[in-house]
Amino acid sequence: MRHDPSPYPERVNRLRAGISENDALLILHEKNIRYLTGFTGSDGTLMAGRDWLALLVDGRYTTQARGEAVGTEIFEFRSRVDGITAVAGERAVGAIGFESPSLSVEDYLRLQEKLPGAVFSPLSDGLRSLRAVKNEEEIALIRKAALIAGEALAAIREMIRPDVREKEIALELEYRMRRGGAEQAAFETIVAAGANAALPHARPGCRAIAAGDCVIVDYGAVSGGYHSDETCTYIVGPASERQREVYRLVREAHDRAIRAIRAGVTCGAIDRIARESLEEAGLGAHFSHGTGHGVGLDVHEAPRLAAGREDILRAGMVVTVEPGIYLPGDWGIRIEDTVLVKEEGCEILTPTSKELTVL
Amino acid sequence: MRHDPSPYPERVNRLRAGISENDALLILHEKNIRYLTGFTGSDGTLMAGRDWLALLVDGRYTTQARGEAVGTEIFEFRSRVDGITAVAGERAVGAIGFESPSLSVEDYLRLQEKLPGAVFSPLSDGLRSLRAVKNEEEIALIRKAALIAGEALAAIREMIRPDVREKEIALELEYRMRRGGAEQAAFETIVAAGANAALPHARPGCRAIAAGDCVIVDYGAVSGGYHSDETCTYIVGPASERQREVYRLVREAHDRAIRAIRAGVTCGAIDRIARESLEEAGLGAHFSHGTGHGVGLDVHEAPRLAAGREDILRAGMVVTVEPGIYLPGDWGIRIEDTVLVKEEGCEILTPTSKELTVL
Repeated sequence: MRHDPSPYPERVNRLRAGISENDALLILHEKNIRYLTGFTGSDGTLMAGRDWLALLVDGRYTTQARGEAVGTEIFEFRSRVDGITAVAGERAVGAIGFESPSLSVEDYLRLQEKLPGAVFSPLSDGLRSLRAVKNEEEIALIRKAALIAGEALAAIREMIRPDVREKEIALELEYRMRRGGAEQAAFETIVAAGANAALPHARPGCRAIAAGDCVIVDYGAVSGGYHSDETCTYIVGPASERQREVYRLVREAHDRAIRAIRAGVTCGAIDRIARESLEEAGLGAHFSHGTGHGVGLDVHEAPRLAAGREDILRAGMVVTVEPGIYLPGDWGIRIEDTVLVKEEGCEILTPTSKELTVL
Repeated sequence: MRHDPSPYPERVNRLRAGISENDALLILHEKNIRYLTGFTGSDGTLMAGRDWLALLVDGRYTTQARGEAVGTEIFEFRSRVDGITAVAGERAVGAIGFESPSLSVEDYLRLQEKLPGAVFSPLSDGLRSLRAVKNEEEIALIRKAALIAGEALAAIREMIRPDVREKEIALELEYRMRRGGAEQAAFETIVAAGANAALPHARPGCRAIAAGDCVIVDYGAVSGGYHSDETCTYIVGPASERQREVYRLVREAHDRAIRAIRAGVTCGAIDRIARESLEEAGLGAHFSHGTGHGVGLDVHEAPRLAAGREDILRAGMVVTVEPGIYLPGDWGIRIEDTVLVKEEGCEILTPTSKELTVL
């Protein structure tokens, strides 16, 4: 991997490699547009022909697009549909590949009406892995996000004690991350105590922490558009024997999966290693989600580390490893790191120790 | 308007009034699902037949749906498409109306494949105004959100002075709103100083405030899911004569529009009043956006107060009035309140004075 001060031409070339039978591709996912041009606005459309690139924005974003976007013409339009129609007409575009998860049916039906001669083809999964392998600059940003987040957690960890509410902790953690340089929290921070820790997607509420609680903190920061993702589970003493045992087992599953990560292994194989580790301990039924996911401009992106996934890990991918055990009505434990895949092994980017910590 | 402890049956009845030729409606917009059932999860699908209601969620949200959703059966499915397919098959649903702005083409194509006999019809604009008229409980929540936000702004207003950065102010304001009881900021807070104030959608950056700046603060809070939206523009002294003059003109446009708001007036008429007020002063070309929008479970919802809109204001609607003047490269001024439409006139819900304030 080399550092490239202008990564966009190479990215657009990779995009064009998938243009196949189409005259142009329609890129609608905000993060893909950012990846391909540098434009960070939250609304825009990118059209890529074989030798041209057109970024369509409305009047709110024209100035920003002119300042940010690289290697593309910029057109201002009142609506996405009007813009696509005009550019497609002007450039005699007949066959258009498009990101079908990011186009609404409303716009799709209007486009078919306005461009009756055009053929619209949903793009295959090809674009899903466009951003999966990161370059050095991207990795540096994820690393920075993880460090900002980890420092914030270290600074507020003393708040995790009886009588403090979940949402107070989440708020202070997000505030500290932003004071520390994060553009924003990577997602709505999860602080889940007691029975709430048994919900994989709990939202922090008014529940106060009590002695004997497991407290799951799932959090991340954004730096330069790139996300980090880490989960620590603390036990507010006294810890029961069962809690210590389950923590040890989740940690073991997490460690085994991480030890297996390297370029060339399938995503499904990593999931299987974590899953079998918990199944051996009789806890398989309580591990109710996938083992991990890619992290980058989105906090969830390709690849997915889940059962049966045949995608192959490549050097430069950044993925989470996050086994968890959830005992409904009781408590839960999840342990998550974000790691960089290397030719041999991987490097953990999230900074917080995953040793059992009883507070 | 009366307070109704369970508003959902009436809302679902209004929804069903639009079922027309269809056997069922597919509701996909998260806020519409919340409005119709009380379910606050961020992923789900609601199907409404003439005498049945089915909420489809994946395993992450089953427990939450059972605890929150009112008047609906709950089904757990791995994917939206699988869920819709199963329920439509079981209930012999042939004609399906759906929210076309909220369905992706990817899911649409899969549904057509899995339900080859079904007819899918995009819903007309009908659902857009489903939530436009608020009940007392909704108004109370918007009012509360506006007060939480206003108190937070009052508490941090002293930060608006030379050498303080835009993003520091935005961060402290959001933190104060959440400490004051907001679930979150209503949107990414805008603090735009100097030339940034000439961008209607500026994002707060590292620019430090300087003497002579206009500083636009566009901010809001969320309370019980309901949003507030308010913009104050401060001038950090010394204020120029031109700044004072433009402030007075924007304020005049804002006041005239608010004085005209009452049930029975069209949205376009309110926009025209604000626009003509600025045109009279020769500033029409610098007022580059609509005059306002509805506020509720979304920060932008129906109705839109924009040129030519024939929708009629009704008592109980909550809308913003936000004229602004933007002088590119120089500075800008926007003044915004959120108001409740009444039979006679309107009530301003946002608490901050719009008198010219030179700090």
